[in-house]
Amino acid sequence: MRVFEEEKKRALERLRRGGADEEVEELLQQINSLDEFFTTSSCSGRIALICLPEIGAKREARFIGKWHRPIRKEEVFAAMSDTPSSENGDIWLIAQSPIVHVACRSLEKATALLRIALEAGFKYSGIKAISKDKGKVVVEMMSTERMDVPLATDDVMLCNEAHLDFIVSKANFMLERGKGKLKRFCYRLRELE
Amino acid sequence: MRVFEEEKKRALERLRRGGADEEVEELLQQINSLDEFFTTSSCSGRIALICLPEIGAKREARFIGKWHRPIRKEEVFAAMSDTPSSENGDIWLIAQSPIVHVACRSLEKATALLRIALEAGFKYSGIKAISKDKGKVVVEMMSTERMDVPLATDDVMLCNEAHLDFIVSKANFMLERGKGKLKRFCYRLRELE
Repeated sequence: MRVFEEEKKRALERLRRGGADEEVEELLQQINSLDEFFTTSSCSGRIALICLPEIGAKREARFIGKWHRPIRKEEVFAAMSDTPSSENGDIWLIAQSPIVHVACRSLEKATALLRIALEAGFKYSGIKAISKDKGKVVVEMMSTERMDVPLATDDVMLCNEAHLDFIVSKANFMLERGKGKLKRFCYRLRELE
Repeated sequence: MRVFEEEKKRALERLRRGGADEEVEELLQQINSLDEFFTTSSCSGRIALICLPEIGAKREARFIGKWHRPIRKEEVFAAMSDTPSSENGDIWLIAQSPIVHVACRSLEKATALLRIALEAGFKYSGIKAISKDKGKVVVEMMSTERMDVPLATDDVMLCNEAHLDFIVSKANFMLERGKGKLKRFCYRLRELE
């Protein structure tokens, strides 16, 4: 089990240096206080504007706006007008659910965590990797809150203002609901102790 | 191992009776031809129009259009105008990736399947459940192709025609890309034999 502890130490060091989104900090602390678990990455959920050279080339996606809080339509327009018009592509507004990766010391601990995650509303959670000796099992916690809305292409805004208002209100609602699930999950975590 | 075989028999019987989307049939046949695996549910990917009483109450979502093939903007308008105006709510256009659930006879077989799924582009795949005796492990194969676009609320269409054209073209592209990944996965399946 030596390896697991060494990896945990390094992960906590990275977390201390890099920090995490405010809304997910309590959850990370709680998980990391348990001997059999440590977190390797996290996001509390976000709304973003991305520019894609073509659909799906997500690796080449360029963020032109990123928020971990509810936003206003005006912020979308501002981010878009700050983007040089020479850099053509499609602009998408995306909303993403909270996501947390947790390393677990055994398969039993991983399935216990997975069950709680699924029950707390993180429906897209699953075990992503199992080390050969089963001494480390990685669980990805993810929820269903997500939007991917194409707004503009080659500098032409296709979304009218009333529609953008509507889209932004839905994205804000999703963001809040994701954060609510983080709280619900925190409450259930004591079952793992 | 008796239980696994009996469950497989029942699952194949359900599949025979219920059928599956054409584009996913070959993949199901290939998986089910392997002793250590059977499929429990599947969808080849789809575009749908749903009516939601409020965001997130997905259980109460009502489908007002559903297609496993590329669509035209006119089909969206037609499905919307066929919906009684008394039934208020938000209308969303959604595109969903292929999804396949596979029961595996052991953890080793499940992780082998998971690896191939991830490498074939099914990035949101994961192990969803492990039976207590580890004699059945369920892998969910899912890809990143997804769109969730709110179009209308309380009978007011907020999306203009040019924007809907753009949205539909992106949804069609995602559908095709999802089906391409199904083919890629089929090709890799021989590694499990």
